[in-house]
Amino acid sequence: MTDTLQKLFEDTVKDVYNAEKQFLKAMPKMSKAATNPELKAAIDKHVEQTKEQVARLEQVAQLLEIKPTGKVCKAAQGLVEEAEEHLEEVAPGPVLDAALIVCAQKNEHYEITSYGTLVAWSQELGLKEVTRILQTTLGEEKDTDVILSELAEKGVNDEASGAKPKAKGGKAS
Amino acid sequence: MTDTLQKLFEDTVKDVYNAEKQFLKAMPKMSKAATNPELKAAIDKHVEQTKEQVARLEQVAQLLEIKPTGKVCKAAQGLVEEAEEHLEEVAPGPVLDAALIVCAQKNEHYEITSYGTLVAWSQELGLKEVTRILQTTLGEEKDTDVILSELAEKGVNDEASGAKPKAKGGKAS
Repeated sequence: MTDTLQKLFEDTVKDVYNAEKQFLKAMPKMSKAATNPELKAAIDKHVEQTKEQVARLEQVAQLLEIKPTGKVCKAAQGLVEEAEEHLEEVAPGPVLDAALIVCAQKNEHYEITSYGTLVAWSQELGLKEVTRILQTTLGEEKDTDVILSELAEKGVNDEASGAKPKAKGGKAS
Repeated sequence: MTDTLQKLFEDTVKDVYNAEKQFLKAMPKMSKAATNPELKAAIDKHVEQTKEQVARLEQVAQLLEIKPTGKVCKAAQGLVEEAEEHLEEVAPGPVLDAALIVCAQKNEHYEITSYGTLVAWSQELGLKEVTRILQTTLGEEKDTDVILSELAEKGVNDEASGAKPKAKGGKAS
């Protein structure tokens, strides 16, 4: 039974390590399905970044004297399944691009919460080196979320709505 | 096959409607398991707020002339399973409180991404009344996330680390 913050911290490191691995496997499929070249490039860049984030978690695990493996992140499983549903159900093109952006942002927000919490807990536990490593990743995840929002606002949403036949409901302007 | 932003928007309304319903079912268990009275009160308050958010989504569905039901949100399923794992594996007290806060924040971040995207898409689709309704909920979700962070920083993390026998790893201060 988990009864210390140290143990909860270690379990959460394992959880996000597994989540990153799952996202790493899902992202190339998302990149392949994307039409917008900037979105494709952003996903590809994040694949490389995620590999570094995985390596950082391995470094954290080493400092904690634990193995980072052994946990299956159920939330990441659900997020990946949701992305796969979109890949099956949405026609390739701007609408799928819009769907891929929201899936990627949901992944980022899961990670932002995880790393944000891990940073707070590592500070609480006085693990300075671990905090420093995790803060680097937290910053990258936040930046990726901003890049994805900008991509949506800059053109993907416009392109996607261009594909709509007619908006119904609400008071359309 | 989904090939318009309007259809993707409607599917995402159904997804978050199902997510809210799942969280609504999970939250009373989380409140019951919480020890910190402020955390318990924050979860209870959010249960009431979520009921209003569900009603708002029903209103949005009515404006869109669709039923909000019919979708199972896989990501929410994963998030709820993760919370249930903590309820089983973490000893009640401050460490479980810290775990419950991160679970609740993961739910909030899922919702923040969903509503944030829905607001952007409804603006894109020119659905002014729908945008207004969704913005109210988005604001509430963001506020809840801030309240949870403050609870963690204000005392829950301190109480949880008080339960630790000895921090290992990193360069402890």
